[in-house]
Amino acid sequence: MEEILVESVEEASLDDPVLVEGLPGVGHVGKLVAEHLVEETESTLVRRVHSEHFPPQVEVDDDGVGSLASVDFYACPTDGRDLLVLTGNHQASDGPGHYRVAETFLDVADDFDVSDVFALGGVPTGELVDEYTVVGAVSDADLKPDLDDAGVEFRAEEPAGGIVGTSGLLVGLGGRRGFHVACLMGETSGYLVDPKSAAAVLDVLETHLDFETDHDALDDRADEMEDVVEQMQQMEGQQQAPSEEDLRYIG
Amino acid sequence: MEEILVESVEEASLDDPVLVEGLPGVGHVGKLVAEHLVEETESTLVRRVHSEHFPPQVEVDDDGVGSLASVDFYACPTDGRDLLVLTGNHQASDGPGHYRVAETFLDVADDFDVSDVFALGGVPTGELVDEYTVVGAVSDADLKPDLDDAGVEFRAEEPAGGIVGTSGLLVGLGGRRGFHVACLMGETSGYLVDPKSAAAVLDVLETHLDFETDHDALDDRADEMEDVVEQMQQMEGQQQAPSEEDLRYIG
Amino acid sequence: MEEILVESVEEASLDDPVLVEGLPGVGHVGKLVAEHLVEETESTLVRRVHSEHFPPQVEVDDDGVGSLASVDFYACPTDGRDLLVLTGNHQASDGPGHYRVAETFLDVADDFDVSDVFALGGVPTGELVDEYTVVGAVSDADLKPDLDDAGVEFRAEEPAGGIVGTSGLLVGLGGRRGFHVACLMGETSGYLVDPKSAAAVLDVLETHLDFETDHDALDDRADEMEDVVEQMQQMEGQQQAPSEEDLRYIG
Amino acid sequence: MEEILVESVEEASLDDPVLVEGLPGVGHVGKLVAEHLVEETESTLVRRVHSEHFPPQVEVDDDGVGSLASVDFYACPTDGRDLLVLTGNHQASDGPGHYRVAETFLDVADDFDVSDVFALGGVPTGELVDEYTVVGAVSDADLKPDLDDAGVEFRAEEPAGGIVGTSGLLVGLGGRRGFHVACLMGETSGYLVDPKSAAAVLDVLETHLDFETDHDALDDRADEMEDVVEQMQQMEGQQQAPSEEDLRYIG
Repeated sequence: MEEILVESVEEASLDDPVLVEGLPGVGHVGKLVAEHLVEETESTLVRRVHSEHFPPQVEVDDDGVGSLASVDFYACPTDGRDLLVLTGNHQASDGPGHYRVAETFLDVADDFDVSDVFALGGVPTGELVDEYTVVGAVSDADLKPDLDDAGVEFRAEEPAGGIVGTSGLLVGLGGRRGFHVACLMGETSGYLVDPKSAAAVLDVLETHLDFETDHDALDDRADEMEDVVEQMQQMEGQQQAPSEEDLRYIG
Repeated sequence: MEEILVESVEEASLDDPVLVEGLPGVGHVGKLVAEHLVEETESTLVRRVHSEHFPPQVEVDDDGVGSLASVDFYACPTDGRDLLVLTGNHQASDGPGHYRVAETFLDVADDFDVSDVFALGGVPTGELVDEYTVVGAVSDADLKPDLDDAGVEFRAEEPAGGIVGTSGLLVGLGGRRGFHVACLMGETSGYLVDPKSAAAVLDVLETHLDFETDHDALDDRADEMEDVVEQMQQMEGQQQAPSEEDLRYIG
Repeated sequence: MEEILVESVEEASLDDPVLVEGLPGVGHVGKLVAEHLVEETESTLVRRVHSEHFPPQVEVDDDGVGSLASVDFYACPTDGRDLLVLTGNHQASDGPGHYRVAETFLDVADDFDVSDVFALGGVPTGELVDEYTVVGAVSDADLKPDLDDAGVEFRAEEPAGGIVGTSGLLVGLGGRRGFHVACLMGETSGYLVDPKSAAAVLDVLETHLDFETDHDALDDRADEMEDVVEQMQQMEGQQQAPSEEDLRYIG
Repeated sequence: MEEILVESVEEASLDDPVLVEGLPGVGHVGKLVAEHLVEETESTLVRRVHSEHFPPQVEVDDDGVGSLASVDFYACPTDGRDLLVLTGNHQASDGPGHYRVAETFLDVADDFDVSDVFALGGVPTGELVDEYTVVGAVSDADLKPDLDDAGVEFRAEEPAGGIVGTSGLLVGLGGRRGFHVACLMGETSGYLVDPKSAAAVLDVLETHLDFETDHDALDDRADEMEDVVEQMQQMEGQQQAPSEEDLRYIG
């Protein structure tokens, strides 16, 4: 196998598509939105990327059939602009691999004539979140007014530690290649898988790109999560607060 | 030395052979089965694979002679289909190395006209196992009925974390190259070297491929291990249970 | 992107310039001096180095605009010799990357006809420092008398563990390429960001190269830090001393 | 710089030399012997090996002059066979680097027409050692009788974990290339720098190769170390035994 292999699964014709990336990360916010888009649109798997920079493993599906670790592109038509959604269970496991795989993702975007990219993720607040602000970072300042209108908040030098991983590199490498890239990060505690934060990011994206999807499944998941959090808070009242360690593994 | 070096040790003519892989892993289940096959058949060492992706070390034999870290292929004729058994003490120590070494293993299989591959391993249950189910995953669904007949159980999306390492890559990369690959995983606590789980996997393999070997040595080893477990359980009754830490290093 | 990419941002004509390197490290001493020089001279960003050996991330600026991890060269004219200042937030994250990136830094220095290099950093003492000695190491012994005159102290086989990272490699690789390289290390506790140590290194550099900058901002920062240390010492008096762990994260 | 750079420092004519390797490792046994040979013979530094697989650092000498991390070859004439001694402060820091650097060491040995190699090290016993046995492993069994005569003990499958690092690879890779390689490992607690174990290995080497050096300096160092151990044992009598942690950093 090559270092990075792009497998063409199916062709799809997309109208002025935008790339939407949602891979595993803080609160799984980006991945939840991306999976939502794949599930709630008439999506088609179009490209599958394998790489020796992904973990050496297969995932087993409902039928017991294993398939090699991959990150996948789905064509997702909407009532607004069409989406090319990039999602999966992996990020590269080494630094140079991160750079090389991100360049490949941009190559695929190029093949689909994409010029606008949205990298989705979460930004950790360290405490339970009441109001789900969506924080933005962009590859060029011209992108800010429209995103601002859609409810994105821009803050000086935030997140303080920069944006790490594929989302960060899409902004950094994508910007250098002339893509218009916005990173949309839902505030989230950082301890829990956070469908509410994902819903906030989805709202912003839909407003900005002017399309709609059915939010019921994501809302249901958010409700379930809310129940979990409430139970946790009751436990807090009764005994000692759950440690960060406890929180980290819930979801 | 090249990045990966395949050394031809001896030639052997095998009749419609299948590749059986058993490298170190959970409960050493795969390795126990592979070593059993090498010991209980008229096996011949045919290929030896060295790689800079294996640990930088030599192993010292009975005579004090050191030999470079390797993974070995043995030709193992049986009364059923012949076996090409892949075993050793190492897996690659870095991600890209894992991919590259696994491709080389498949190249060797190709050289021996292998088309069917069995990747053997254990699946951890986290507790002592009473009944040793063998869980399967395959490269294509057509392989399932026959394995089902031989007693393999297929479960949706299990193991949950996917199959990691050489066994996983044989399924993933092998499937992509047209091999028919089944991964057979014996349930095992995950804390102990588990000859009983190995015996369960061996039973399935012998039934499926219609050959027989003498199980006495493996059964003896299983009995010894059972004594160890009983002693541990008595200790549990008397004092506090052994921690996972204790269990992890027994075998 | 190439493995290492040198981006020409602007041209600048420098008169017999010296390279001054200050990247993150012990007490952030080198970085503080380098940033001081960039801020207190009429500096121009001339080269920006990106590399897949830097962390896969972007930094977000005051405007919410993200830019790819980089290390930057600034042309800094002074009333003495001109400076080419190398600073940033990153060092390479893998060993071979460290070597390759350092060679690139020397290539850039070559392009600017630099032959004298000053690698700045801190040397940890393990306790709070009263008098800020600047310890030196050089690529060839001829450089010592002048530096000695400027107040640099040379000690046999110190720092005991050698000089690690970019500063060390500039001495080692630079010396091999014929550069005259001095590493100037301010003594510092190792637990705190240390502007006082940076001021000591800056004094030596200015004396040696015969230029002047306004130290007010650095002195202010040193005063603030002194207040923090005093508060800590009062706490020490009252209760138990802060652990190294406490100290490590202050600054 | 190339990935691995062999610098010719001086030429030396050696009569039927043997390579003696002693790099940092268990009890620093190998390094102590190699350094002893360099100090107690009329040695000449002949080759210096740099590599990006060594740590990115310089070491500072008595004069404050830094030199790039290296491993060095010394020509050491003796009253018996001449020695080409390989020593330094580093081993490669990544697996593939270990293999590549070891091949380079063998290339240098080839250049000096070496065919016999002695890789020196320690084998940890986990407790203080009374009698300092030297354990051997060889690239081919023919080498054993002579070594046996010199007092080397061969034990089946020991050390149990194999021989790791440069010493192991010299046996493994060297054996494959036709060198006659013996690894001589002094028993040592594993917690202390152990000049007594080094003296035992040196005795064997001198007996086997029929040369002599002045052991005074090594004996002195052994005496000092014995005093340290006695003090530790007295402390043991008085209070609780020093932990492994305590022991690990003495030397």
